[in-house]
Amino acid sequence: MRYPRAFEELIDALKKLPGIGLKSAERIAYKILEMDEEEIKAFAASLINAKKELHRCSICGQITDQNVCDFCADERRNQEIVCVVQNPKDAFAIEKARDYNGLYHILYGVISATNGVSPRDLNIQSLIERISKGKIKEVIIATNPTTEGETTALYLAKILSDKNVLVSRIAYGLPLGANLDYTDEYTLIKAIEGRRKM
Amino acid sequence: MRYPRAFEELIDALKKLPGIGLKSAERIAYKILEMDEEEIKAFAASLINAKKELHRCSICGQITDQNVCDFCADERRNQEIVCVVQNPKDAFAIEKARDYNGLYHILYGVISATNGVSPRDLNIQSLIERISKGKIKEVIIATNPTTEGETTALYLAKILSDKNVLVSRIAYGLPLGANLDYTDEYTLIKAIEGRRKM
Repeated sequence: MRYPRAFEELIDALKKLPGIGLKSAERIAYKILEMDEEEIKAFAASLINAKKELHRCSICGQITDQNVCDFCADERRNQEIVCVVQNPKDAFAIEKARDYNGLYHILYGVISATNGVSPRDLNIQSLIERISKGKIKEVIIATNPTTEGETTALYLAKILSDKNVLVSRIAYGLPLGANLDYTDEYTLIKAIEGRRKM
Repeated sequence: MRYPRAFEELIDALKKLPGIGLKSAERIAYKILEMDEEEIKAFAASLINAKKELHRCSICGQITDQNVCDFCADERRNQEIVCVVQNPKDAFAIEKARDYNGLYHILYGVISATNGVSPRDLNIQSLIERISKGKIKEVIIATNPTTEGETTALYLAKILSDKNVLVSRIAYGLPLGANLDYTDEYTLIKAIEGRRKM
């Protein structure tokens, strides 16, 4: 006994989304059937509309509905610092801290042998072009503190070493509110290594 | 700094799906933007198409693209036994065991004070009507062994008590392959209570 074809197709479409396995896809599919027709049409339209209106910022790669994103278009931001992040949402995460006021550059991933991602699959060429224009003085590399994020940071530091910019890496250490006792040893090592005079 | 409007709308639409919080919705939204336009259109179409083609079986409530679902339409199945389940997918789970050959009835939920679900919100009236036709001899109640599933099973047993059908409940006990040492005490109590002569 199998699901009706239209239902199988819906489940197959949902399974392609990240983090959605068969069980979740089934659950979501049932939920979608419970939505009323107008709601589903609005949902479908939001998918198509997002694809139609949104694209990458021509400067930093951030998602935008303009030619240049709101970050890059904001002249009050410090134009001399660029923070390099893995994904568009990382820039918004940093924004939430309300501390950083420079620009961003979105890599769209990290170098990964296991996932077959090489430097040329990332948004790196446009970073080099940005830097070549001479206005940028510091590049903060804010990829995740994982093996792949680290590899990517080292790669970027190397290719930017002859570019007359300061290349820095975000600090490692204990997150605020953390319990030392529950912190993994690698974080502790990094926290001690990175200690500062008080 | 906020997401572009079309992106916010997409995230909002995704957040309405079950088990999708803000973080997952963001992740999925980014992924959707990476899909090509044809793929997104196909996805949107599968949503609309599923809603258009699928509805509840007029007999048991199972999701179908016909008037009567494949289960109810199959005359080779035992027409005298009905297994009552919470959700459409539970019927498919039982089918996978390839043992049960009777019919099903889908409640679409369980009685739940916390979620404000009362018996009249469930697909119970049509079960009573099915039984009134006199062909059904046994009703197996296969709601989940949770407090709410139990409450619903007791409720059904009560309202069916004057209907001249045998009402049974699926067995509780250790799942096959389980480790007694790791089994919770309530399951153990049920397993001992339900012991059978060998």
